[in-house]
Amino acid sequence: MDYSIIVIGDELLIGQVTDTNSGWIARHLTPFGWNPKFVKVIGDNAEQITQAIDEAFAQTDCVLMTGGLGPTKDDITKPTLCRYFGGSLVLDEPTRLNVMEVVNRLNLKINDYTARQALVPTSCRIIQNQVGTAPIMWFEKGGKVLVSLPGVPFETETMMKRSVIHLLTERFPTDIHICHRTFIVVGYPESDLAIRLNDYELSLPTHIHLAYLPQPGLYIRLRLTGTLANSDMLTEQMDTFSRKLTELLGSSIICDEDKPTEAILGDVLTRMNLTLSTAESCTGGNIAHRITSVAGSSQYFMGSVVAYDNSIKSSVLHVPSQLINDFGAVSEHTVRAMVNGVCDMMHTQCAIATSGIAGPGGGTPDKPVGTVWVAAKYGNSVVAEKKLFFGNRAQVIERATTHGITLLLRLLLNL
Amino acid sequence: MDYSIIVIGDELLIGQVTDTNSGWIARHLTPFGWNPKFVKVIGDNAEQITQAIDEAFAQTDCVLMTGGLGPTKDDITKPTLCRYFGGSLVLDEPTRLNVMEVVNRLNLKINDYTARQALVPTSCRIIQNQVGTAPIMWFEKGGKVLVSLPGVPFETETMMKRSVIHLLTERFPTDIHICHRTFIVVGYPESDLAIRLNDYELSLPTHIHLAYLPQPGLYIRLRLTGTLANSDMLTEQMDTFSRKLTELLGSSIICDEDKPTEAILGDVLTRMNLTLSTAESCTGGNIAHRITSVAGSSQYFMGSVVAYDNSIKSSVLHVPSQLINDFGAVSEHTVRAMVNGVCDMMHTQCAIATSGIAGPGGGTPDKPVGTVWVAAKYGNSVVAEKKLFFGNRAQVIERATTHGITLLLRLLLNL
Repeated sequence: MDYSIIVIGDELLIGQVTDTNSGWIARHLTPFGWNPKFVKVIGDNAEQITQAIDEAFAQTDCVLMTGGLGPTKDDITKPTLCRYFGGSLVLDEPTRLNVMEVVNRLNLKINDYTARQALVPTSCRIIQNQVGTAPIMWFEKGGKVLVSLPGVPFETETMMKRSVIHLLTERFPTDIHICHRTFIVVGYPESDLAIRLNDYELSLPTHIHLAYLPQPGLYIRLRLTGTLANSDMLTEQMDTFSRKLTELLGSSIICDEDKPTEAILGDVLTRMNLTLSTAESCTGGNIAHRITSVAGSSQYFMGSVVAYDNSIKSSVLHVPSQLINDFGAVSEHTVRAMVNGVCDMMHTQCAIATSGIAGPGGGTPDKPVGTVWVAAKYGNSVVAEKKLFFGNRAQVIERATTHGITLLLRLLLNL
Repeated sequence: MDYSIIVIGDELLIGQVTDTNSGWIARHLTPFGWNPKFVKVIGDNAEQITQAIDEAFAQTDCVLMTGGLGPTKDDITKPTLCRYFGGSLVLDEPTRLNVMEVVNRLNLKINDYTARQALVPTSCRIIQNQVGTAPIMWFEKGGKVLVSLPGVPFETETMMKRSVIHLLTERFPTDIHICHRTFIVVGYPESDLAIRLNDYELSLPTHIHLAYLPQPGLYIRLRLTGTLANSDMLTEQMDTFSRKLTELLGSSIICDEDKPTEAILGDVLTRMNLTLSTAESCTGGNIAHRITSVAGSSQYFMGSVVAYDNSIKSSVLHVPSQLINDFGAVSEHTVRAMVNGVCDMMHTQCAIATSGIAGPGGGTPDKPVGTVWVAAKYGNSVVAEKKLFFGNRAQVIERATTHGITLLLRLLLNL
């Protein structure tokens, strides 16, 4: 089942906010054999909205639209849809009651603008938004369906899960099945891996396809995608080709699911019954953040010391000041002392430590911006690596974080 | 100058990766009066690419395209562009030398796949990619321009800054100017603010437009956008209407730039010459991460203790275990003890502390998932608030983080 997504909002188009709704929708409709044909991001502009709907209906039978439904003057999606599908905007009593209920629950006040949310086109069916004030509108025209959803990700995600996905798959039952399998591979640059898998790729049937998603210098995600009417046959073939891939790449595959590295690390720590702490300088808490973004991480993660100032490295993590003076905060000696210090302090078997120069300032000819020392400890083994990460401040922090997590993972898995 | 952006990649379309290139491009072309008409995200599919180019050329004279240029089999943008614009793929010696240089610099090996990057269409002009192996291709056809850029954000951002933006604005000189001004407003729900600004909005000329970007419960970004040929007149008018807005909203405007709250907090701390530390439980290091994502934060941020396990709250932050036993880790007593503990430990005048239930597990009828206690300290003043955040684990963490930063900001600004 092909469908398209139209995302509305000047703030998205000019890059002030990043659209995450389309990705969420795509991820959650894929298992039902739904395949997004395109995502189009447009501004709060009636002409562009109309044109985008024409185009989407020309290519697909179902269009999901998010955004442009706020109560203020710049949101013009609702009147535009009313003109497109016909009818007029009328006060809908169930919608009014729902808006009141939501407004009361969120401790807001009702006013002219929120009241306006209860005006809905007569040409659509309303799905009440249980977590926000903008009603979800379901339009049908000539066998085609357009569903207008709110721009607030939490509202769209909640209402998709509670009812819209169910209504869509009921309205457009499909017997085409799509199946994705993802494998996380370490130890290969993308082009070396492509050579290694050349014969394998040639052996794939036309309805199964392999894609490479590299995280340069860290890992590559391999995604196998199959599309077939016969679900059982597809599963069987995907199993076969997944097994062949696993045989070819052996222990270079550290995970056969699409998981972030921090979740893979969590699985390994849980399996080995180990605890973890972190001591962070240049990553500034981002390693702890990524680790605790995994549900259940409280089972193995004890805590972290973000020792941003050198005085904290000494006073809290007991890194000798003499050592920092002699070798610098960004040095192998310092990260080794940090990783040992936090393990002692938090009584963990494993730890990760970082110290580096995230930039834009602070670089020297000797230690340019992007220089990061990373250490990982497991039991009595400590490994430390110096890396030079390219990119801006955010990218250096992100890469150093992923590298720290990957370094401990490799140490634990003996890779 | 209207232009369009085409983003290519199955991984983006199915939501495995989030596109950030289009937003980056839009933000960096806006100051030159360039206005994105739409962003279209499509898969690695020759037919869709061809169709998207036709559509983009029908609406705009310039098309920027990112992605689909990797060396592996699933990237088919280059041959598709070669068919679209004519000519053939030939080995280009300067490109080969550039690929070799980049490969050597990154300590990779050259192989058949990387070598293939040096094959380029005869119908385009090449801009050498100084930080990656995929060359940037500049096509012209009937007065229209298409530039194909890599999918890796760092490569596209670097090359846009080093040369592509300059080449584009030189090729399409424009005398339409676009100006955005953003204001961060606290203390109003969106619809109350809309009522407050009703007359103001009606007084705006048609070429100046006000948009609301709410962060529910935290703050609203107001964005004033003006478009005019006469740059001086536009600046003057934008100044006038910005001043009127500032007069209307007074101290509810905490910043007149589009900055994240952590950067606003950084400005205030720097101005007041104060230092900061954080003590985090449920936010797991994300407050420290957000604070240190601001360049120069090492001037005021000392560090953080992520006390994820209760034992760390006691042993490191000196929260009495008796207090945790009596009132629970998620309690006003605990966050107050945490915020005081970390201030003492790191010798800072300010601190933020959090303790809550991020979910999905761990909720009770009394303290459901999303319950978070947040405390902020400045000098001898400590404020603590209990919040119930909606959303999944990531959303609860993100909201609690923003709330903690906002709480300290309000305390410092007496709001």
